[in-house]
Amino acid sequence: MIYEPNQCPIRFALGAFGDRWSLLIIRDMLFRGCTHFQELVDADEGISTSILANRLQRLEAQQIIARAPDPGDGLQVLYTLTEKGRDLVPVLLALFVWAEKHDPETRVPSDLAAQIGREMTVDHDLALDRIRSALAQPRAGDTAPR
Amino acid sequence: MIYEPNQCPIRFALGAFGDRWSLLIIRDMLFRGCTHFQELVDADEGISTSILANRLQRLEAQQIIARAPDPGDGLQVLYTLTEKGRDLVPVLLALFVWAEKHDPETRVPSDLAAQIGREMTVDHDLALDRIRSALAQPRAGDTAPR
Repeated sequence: MIYEPNQCPIRFALGAFGDRWSLLIIRDMLFRGCTHFQELVDADEGISTSILANRLQRLEAQQIIARAPDPGDGLQVLYTLTEKGRDLVPVLLALFVWAEKHDPETRVPSDLAAQIGREMTVDHDLALDRIRSALAQPRAGDTAPR
Repeated sequence: MIYEPNQCPIRFALGAFGDRWSLLIIRDMLFRGCTHFQELVDADEGISTSILANRLQRLEAQQIIARAPDPGDGLQVLYTLTEKGRDLVPVLLALFVWAEKHDPETRVPSDLAAQIGREMTVDHDLALDRIRSALAQPRAGDTAPR
């Protein structure tokens, strides 16, 4: 294989938020507009404040979220997604479409999921073929490290 | 909020494979064509055979992979992705594109990632608006349980 393990994009992505809570926090910031610690506690029944504080720190260290004093109340901290965090939208949309199709318990408007699925349409076989041939090529065919 | 926690598609998806190893196994089956236990051990330096056996069992219980005797060698077990497993392609492609953009260590052909990113293009703001209004609507506006 041409990639060292630490050069694999999937591994990197999972290292950044390969944790159920981290991605649920990003979901609540993205879909529900949560920007404050207490909103995140309230948005998702079941996350403890210590886990939330830990994951927010980790997401900030990964530069997926940023924290700043709340302009409206300097004693409060405002959490926002960075560009790197907002760039996770396609990942969450892909999870959304997949779960809508395969989880009988998931309750989302199925026309909405179908529409998003159509809009994300990519030729999977073609994409897979391309990735497989990239993996099969010698390193010389690769791009230079950036 | 209109959804109970167990009705959220993102939570379902993370429950199914919210684990770094599970998604790396799916990656190796999808991108590298691994179908046998030993190939999976060899494909990803670092996974122990006990973790691999555990995750394969879990993925099979979730019906993301299927196991059957290898037609070429009945003593061997053949692992394949089900439709539910193959439907994870957009999730892996979205992770691929995101990591290519944000991880300086990731070494994938950037033109390939850019091309896949373009093909997956969806109007993110529009999709988010739609999901946010679905979340804001009363349950009556929701689809019936399926």
